[in-house]
Amino acid sequence: MLAAEYIGNKSFSLREGSSQAPETGEVRLSVSYVGICGTDMHIYHGAMDQRVGPPSVIGHEMSGVVAELGDGVTDFKIGDRVVVRPLDWCGECHACKAGNTHVCQNLKFMGIDTPGAFQSSWTVKSRTLHKLPENVNQQQGALVEPLAVACHDINRAKVKAGENVVVLGGGPIGQLVALVAKAIGAEVLVSEVNAQRREFAEKYGLKTVDPMQEDIVEVVNEWTDGKGAEAVFEVSGVQPAVDVMGEIAAVRGRICMVAIHTQKPQVDLFKFFWKELELVGARVYEAQDFEMAIELLADSKIDISAFVTSVTALDSIQDAFGGLDGNPSGMKALVNCEVKAEI
Amino acid sequence: MLAAEYIGNKSFSLREGSSQAPETGEVRLSVSYVGICGTDMHIYHGAMDQRVGPPSVIGHEMSGVVAELGDGVTDFKIGDRVVVRPLDWCGECHACKAGNTHVCQNLKFMGIDTPGAFQSSWTVKSRTLHKLPENVNQQQGALVEPLAVACHDINRAKVKAGENVVVLGGGPIGQLVALVAKAIGAEVLVSEVNAQRREFAEKYGLKTVDPMQEDIVEVVNEWTDGKGAEAVFEVSGVQPAVDVMGEIAAVRGRICMVAIHTQKPQVDLFKFFWKELELVGARVYEAQDFEMAIELLADSKIDISAFVTSVTALDSIQDAFGGLDGNPSGMKALVNCEVKAEI
Repeated sequence: MLAAEYIGNKSFSLREGSSQAPETGEVRLSVSYVGICGTDMHIYHGAMDQRVGPPSVIGHEMSGVVAELGDGVTDFKIGDRVVVRPLDWCGECHACKAGNTHVCQNLKFMGIDTPGAFQSSWTVKSRTLHKLPENVNQQQGALVEPLAVACHDINRAKVKAGENVVVLGGGPIGQLVALVAKAIGAEVLVSEVNAQRREFAEKYGLKTVDPMQEDIVEVVNEWTDGKGAEAVFEVSGVQPAVDVMGEIAAVRGRICMVAIHTQKPQVDLFKFFWKELELVGARVYEAQDFEMAIELLADSKIDISAFVTSVTALDSIQDAFGGLDGNPSGMKALVNCEVKAEI
Repeated sequence: MLAAEYIGNKSFSLREGSSQAPETGEVRLSVSYVGICGTDMHIYHGAMDQRVGPPSVIGHEMSGVVAELGDGVTDFKIGDRVVVRPLDWCGECHACKAGNTHVCQNLKFMGIDTPGAFQSSWTVKSRTLHKLPENVNQQQGALVEPLAVACHDINRAKVKAGENVVVLGGGPIGQLVALVAKAIGAEVLVSEVNAQRREFAEKYGLKTVDPMQEDIVEVVNEWTDGKGAEAVFEVSGVQPAVDVMGEIAAVRGRICMVAIHTQKPQVDLFKFFWKELELVGARVYEAQDFEMAIELLADSKIDISAFVTSVTALDSIQDAFGGLDGNPSGMKALVNCEVKAEI
């Protein structure tokens, strides 16, 4: 089998090796496609070397086929087409005991804290798997993970049909949040500075605004007749978005914090008091979010294929990362990890 | 009747006048006791002159007796002992139409935006009234309003029995929040820099911490065995409290924003993402919070009388405000507005 190892400094090295036999409760997968996530780009840029510990196989947005079963695995059979929910929780901490295993206090994120999917063969716990239905193919399957992020965000913010929703930031996750909101019947506005990304959203029938050209507060006020947005998603990670998020929210609006703010921005807490706003953090996903994402694809509620802007073979992974770097028109780059002989 | 008018610059002037006859849907009250709120102190210090427009009668934490009924008022009779929920909402805005009249987009707060209770006779809409049961007296009744604030905070944060709750700030509202949390079965820790206020809390059996002397993060970690607090109430309005609020909260903990932050503090939004925290603003109260407050007093769940640190006659209101100014041991100063002849 072939594995691509991140070795630091924007570089990958290819390694031939033998696949890892599954232990009890584990499954060995033949990996089909793996998407490159924003977090993978952070790793590529060296921002997470301490956590990742190169050389290391990264990657976590994937689809695959069950190739080998460990003892005790009865829910899956060889040949099943699956996706991995890449979370390894301890089951022992306060969060796990409260039923929130996805925010386990000792959570290991597969593909960051443990080996990931940029390899032709990946051995994982069977509890991480979700089956793909017949009408969702392997390329679409590789997008289930980011779509599940969006489903989790929408569920955390309790978005309902008919509500006005603003998404601040039109990168891949912002676009998916907007599309899930639209799929469940909300009215959606995407705020994004990049013209290509606005155009991408508009092709999906989403309303957009360029916050550098227009006053988003005025735009939202006019759009909602002075009500404001019932739900706001902060997916940009920048101070100007934090400045407006409370302003554009309706009284008792919910603001979902999706972005990773590495700085501590200034927040108008008075507005939270005055309008009884809610801010709710959303991290990764729960099993139900994966099921929801798969169902949205199976029911053709979201045309996910347009997100795939490139497909590169595993042995050219260096090109895939290089092509996405600093390229805002690139939405989702897939790496094809199939090594046919192995299935 | 006698009215005390705030005339600006920490000063009141007394005015004799005739009482205002109630119009349709209104009730004239003989005012019994009126508490001095933190907001009244802000007004006294001149911080809200533009909104209040002196000369103006302020005051809104009150109890009274129904003295005269306007047309169409059938729910109350002369002699009923009542408290006023001092909110005047429009009924027309988006917030009102969504059922959130207490955060009406055109809300007038009685005693700030319209005349208040520091007078012997006050005419108000009957929709603002709540009856006092037999075993809640008029002094206790004047504390229903701040207690309803605390009930609203507890309800917004969805505090449940058995949870660990931290209250950041031990002023009157912080103490009441702590006592309501305790009354419904939570474990409560009050963080307060002032020794007299910590002592006040301890007399009620509340656990306290001085955040200047001890590391509150360590204290909470030890207290909760590494879990953190399910609910945190920010009642202090200072940056150091904002700095620790996310740190001491449990995974998926709820942080209730009670304090008025006039500056925009820096907030660790990463922690909101990482621990899936919730921040929920809480402003004033709803009718159900008043009912809950009255019930807590009627059932003797909270000994509210210890909060009354002074009682001053209306014609000495200047002394009442002066005595509370910069005095952290003063919890609740009541002004006695009874003019016996009028009932």
